[in-house]
Amino acid sequence: MPELENFFNEVRNIIDLELNRLVPTVGTQPFRLYDAIRWSLFGEGKRFRPALVIAAGREFGASDKKLVHTAAAVEMIHTYSLIHDDLPAMDDDDLRRGRATVHKKFDQATAILAGDALQAMAFETIADDGSLDEKMRLQLISELSAAAGQMVAGQQLDLEAEGEKADVKMVERIHKGKTGALIRFSVRAGGIIAQVSVLDLQVLTEFGEKLGLLFQITDDILDVTSTSAALGKTAGKDVASMKATYPEAIGLDGARALAKQIEVETRNVLSPLCGDKSLLHDICKYVATRNS
Amino acid sequence: MPELENFFNEVRNIIDLELNRLVPTVGTQPFRLYDAIRWSLFGEGKRFRPALVIAAGREFGASDKKLVHTAAAVEMIHTYSLIHDDLPAMDDDDLRRGRATVHKKFDQATAILAGDALQAMAFETIADDGSLDEKMRLQLISELSAAAGQMVAGQQLDLEAEGEKADVKMVERIHKGKTGALIRFSVRAGGIIAQVSVLDLQVLTEFGEKLGLLFQITDDILDVTSTSAALGKTAGKDVASMKATYPEAIGLDGARALAKQIEVETRNVLSPLCGDKSLLHDICKYVATRNS
Repeated sequence: MPELENFFNEVRNIIDLELNRLVPTVGTQPFRLYDAIRWSLFGEGKRFRPALVIAAGREFGASDKKLVHTAAAVEMIHTYSLIHDDLPAMDDDDLRRGRATVHKKFDQATAILAGDALQAMAFETIADDGSLDEKMRLQLISELSAAAGQMVAGQQLDLEAEGEKADVKMVERIHKGKTGALIRFSVRAGGIIAQVSVLDLQVLTEFGEKLGLLFQITDDILDVTSTSAALGKTAGKDVASMKATYPEAIGLDGARALAKQIEVETRNVLSPLCGDKSLLHDICKYVATRNS
Repeated sequence: MPELENFFNEVRNIIDLELNRLVPTVGTQPFRLYDAIRWSLFGEGKRFRPALVIAAGREFGASDKKLVHTAAAVEMIHTYSLIHDDLPAMDDDDLRRGRATVHKKFDQATAILAGDALQAMAFETIADDGSLDEKMRLQLISELSAAAGQMVAGQQLDLEAEGEKADVKMVERIHKGKTGALIRFSVRAGGIIAQVSVLDLQVLTEFGEKLGLLFQITDDILDVTSTSAALGKTAGKDVASMKATYPEAIGLDGARALAKQIEVETRNVLSPLCGDKSLLHDICKYVATRNS
């Protein structure tokens, strides 16, 4: 899908420019804090969630100018959650986005603070976005903060479920918070900014929910089947930590079959939408077949 | 000052009711997360920052109904910062608000997540506050997120300064972020909600800045002169950790003299304001003479 690749590259350029503008430059005191924030933000990264904001928004005619701040805010929330989840007290990981995790490269205190700062910065970014009207900004902040809360609850459930026998309901519940909430928000945010109808926002919401599920199933599969080099993070980590995952709950073949089924369902959700849906279809296919 | 005591008690009742309403009840899954959040929120605590929001707001005729959500949000941000600052990788403290710190009572992962959840909840609380108009909510979120960022930067500077010879400029810089930013915001928030004039907001801002400075000087003095039982947190911690403090930079007598001077300056800031300033005066006196 060369078109999708172009789109992802384009998003990466737009978002990296914006993040670079929003985050204090290296050389701002306290140096170590902003070094750490930039270290984590500017590693390899697909900018998948910002791509969802922009894809869903463009689909309905929103300009990039209106989408880019919220897309950057989503990436800040995502990055803060990665930094904190990687801490020794949580998932204890050394590798992320193809480089050392923040607490490895810097130290734990700096990692905790860098995450905290990124979370605050995300809400500040939307609050100060003069290209969106006030009501829209408040809706985005309200929904993004709720999603951030769900991510935390999902991570807590995930840690508590370590070592327990995973059943598929529990796996679904964990991931609905941990990964699903922010993916759902990203798709909705594009629709909210484009001021879509209530019905179209409903369709986007369902698409976001299914896509989040699909993303997590393939994430769990890749943890088993791929390499750390390809993923930019430690492969085989879920099994080693006895995490609740789809392959653990229903086997690798079961997880693959489920991914196929959810891929079809995700695409079908879009059928009531008018207009060109090729970008959203391509994203769905990408998530189902990705190898990193 | 029995009137001030009544006021603090009243604030505590109002804020605790509101926090109790806003935070998911014990028995919400994941149990451990909400247990931990409630453990930290509902320890002993003066609710000093919410009191500032309410005092400044009432001074200019804002109703409690309009002030209480923002006041609760400020307490959430304050509490999240305490939970994270107490972590072993940061100030490594066992006692807070007269009880075990969250990572001691629960565990480090839960403490990190409880802090993260409280930060998100603070912004959600203001975004969803239907009693304030949209523009006002956005201004409060923008300023509160900026203050939260400054707190993080202050804590980072504080950790980096440990063991270094403290000079008074550095101490001031650390505390302007670490404690000052949220106290400044709290006073401003009362004024913003009461829709005061630009000039009056300027006065309140200066009052908040000076009061934050005064608060930190007396905090540093109490760390040396008081007991853990009176403070509800570990006394003597600053010296043991070789923190940059006022007594360390200018001696205990120097710090006491500075507090007296700043107390006068803080009160004088208020002179351009019309109306009854007795509550703000009393708060200033309380901060200067407090023993816990």
